[in-house]
Amino acid sequence: MRNIKMILEYDGTRYNGWQKQNNTENTIQGKLNEIISKLLEEDVEIIGSGRTDAGVHAYGQVANFKTKSTIDLKTLLKNCNKTLSNDISIKEMAEADERFHARYNAVSKKYIYRIWNHEQANVFERKYSAHHPGKLDIAQMKEAAELLVGEHDFKAFSSDKRNKKSTMKKIYTLEITKADNMIQIECHGNSFLYNMVRIIAGTLIEVGSGKRKVQSIKEILESKDRQTAGFTALPNGLFLQEVCYK
Amino acid sequence: MRNIKMILEYDGTRYNGWQKQNNTENTIQGKLNEIISKLLEEDVEIIGSGRTDAGVHAYGQVANFKTKSTIDLKTLLKNCNKTLSNDISIKEMAEADERFHARYNAVSKKYIYRIWNHEQANVFERKYSAHHPGKLDIAQMKEAAELLVGEHDFKAFSSDKRNKKSTMKKIYTLEITKADNMIQIECHGNSFLYNMVRIIAGTLIEVGSGKRKVQSIKEILESKDRQTAGFTALPNGLFLQEVCYK
Repeated sequence: MRNIKMILEYDGTRYNGWQKQNNTENTIQGKLNEIISKLLEEDVEIIGSGRTDAGVHAYGQVANFKTKSTIDLKTLLKNCNKTLSNDISIKEMAEADERFHARYNAVSKKYIYRIWNHEQANVFERKYSAHHPGKLDIAQMKEAAELLVGEHDFKAFSSDKRNKKSTMKKIYTLEITKADNMIQIECHGNSFLYNMVRIIAGTLIEVGSGKRKVQSIKEILESKDRQTAGFTALPNGLFLQEVCYK
Repeated sequence: MRNIKMILEYDGTRYNGWQKQNNTENTIQGKLNEIISKLLEEDVEIIGSGRTDAGVHAYGQVANFKTKSTIDLKTLLKNCNKTLSNDISIKEMAEADERFHARYNAVSKKYIYRIWNHEQANVFERKYSAHHPGKLDIAQMKEAAELLVGEHDFKAFSSDKRNKKSTMKKIYTLEITKADNMIQIECHGNSFLYNMVRIIAGTLIEVGSGKRKVQSIKEILESKDRQTAGFTALPNGLFLQEVCYK
């Protein structure tokens, strides 16, 4: 069996997230399964590096699948992109080691959260950023972000109450930049809890708008209680930028 | 009567263009007429600086309307933007001279045509650029663009066969830039014929891809024949950037 690794870009606006579910139609994984299986005339199973929620986008989601087909990958990629609707694009397809697994082998991920920070909404960015009309103090947000960098128990930054796995995670970098009216929060970490980036973004927005103090970050981490952290920022501002492997 | 000038931004994707027509629903002018009339409880008539076609966008369309209302314009702008769907935004509203007319008083316009120039489509730019997968020679395109600058008879660059007005137009600047994989054609002129910017863009794409020579621009202008010019580039790459007044 050949093991094919793919890099994917998608606009999550129209989809019920990445993950194929029994009762949910219109997922990105579901579409890929359907189209690649049809083109290869073989039931393939697409394995993603992880889920993205409904409305969340990806510049660089990674997935793999196994196939008996000997088809030329350039041809397959071209035919997939022709068949897929134009809000999903396969950027790369390459043969991987037979043991490669998009989820198990991922060693870190980079996310970007985009905030359109202007009194007025931007019609062209409305699907690709969260709109925050009020002033945001970037310096304060940067200070708060620094307190999140490193290895911590991020339990308070997760919406998943039923999670029984470890909530210890490591954030390598958490950088905030502003160009014109667009604020970008770039987060690179070893792995992420459910809604973690969106709750971090929501909490940083609360710091920036003066609703909470920089030092409250320490209290949130210590509390391990979701209620102490900020709101869950909207999905449309979030992009899975890159999945890193060894 | 007060005369109100507005600057508008819109994503033209979902609309049948700017111009309200008897049999066409879902136009931008129609939506604005409807919502502003409703909010002011008065029949107003929105006058735009000019039409934009179905699928064409605007960063800075200008329009005006007359009203008896004494409403505070900040309040009106806020209420309009709340009521309008999120792909149309009024950026500014200000009282203008009573003789101000958005179309008659416009002295020049700036358009941008965006081309995503990469083998693969970009899912986030698909509605806001034309996709050209093949190589484009920017230097050749710039040379061709230079030949269009100045005052010429642009009849060959218009789709409107029934036009009886002068087809002499002046292009002040026609600049081509490339950043990453996005090519931008910026065109500033005194006024424009129907489809003129899109035919210029199509012709420049043909020059860039080697399908026609730089010198053919002169022949097109001399011919005054639409058939000699290039194809009409897709509407989704076109933005009305700015309308200039004295």
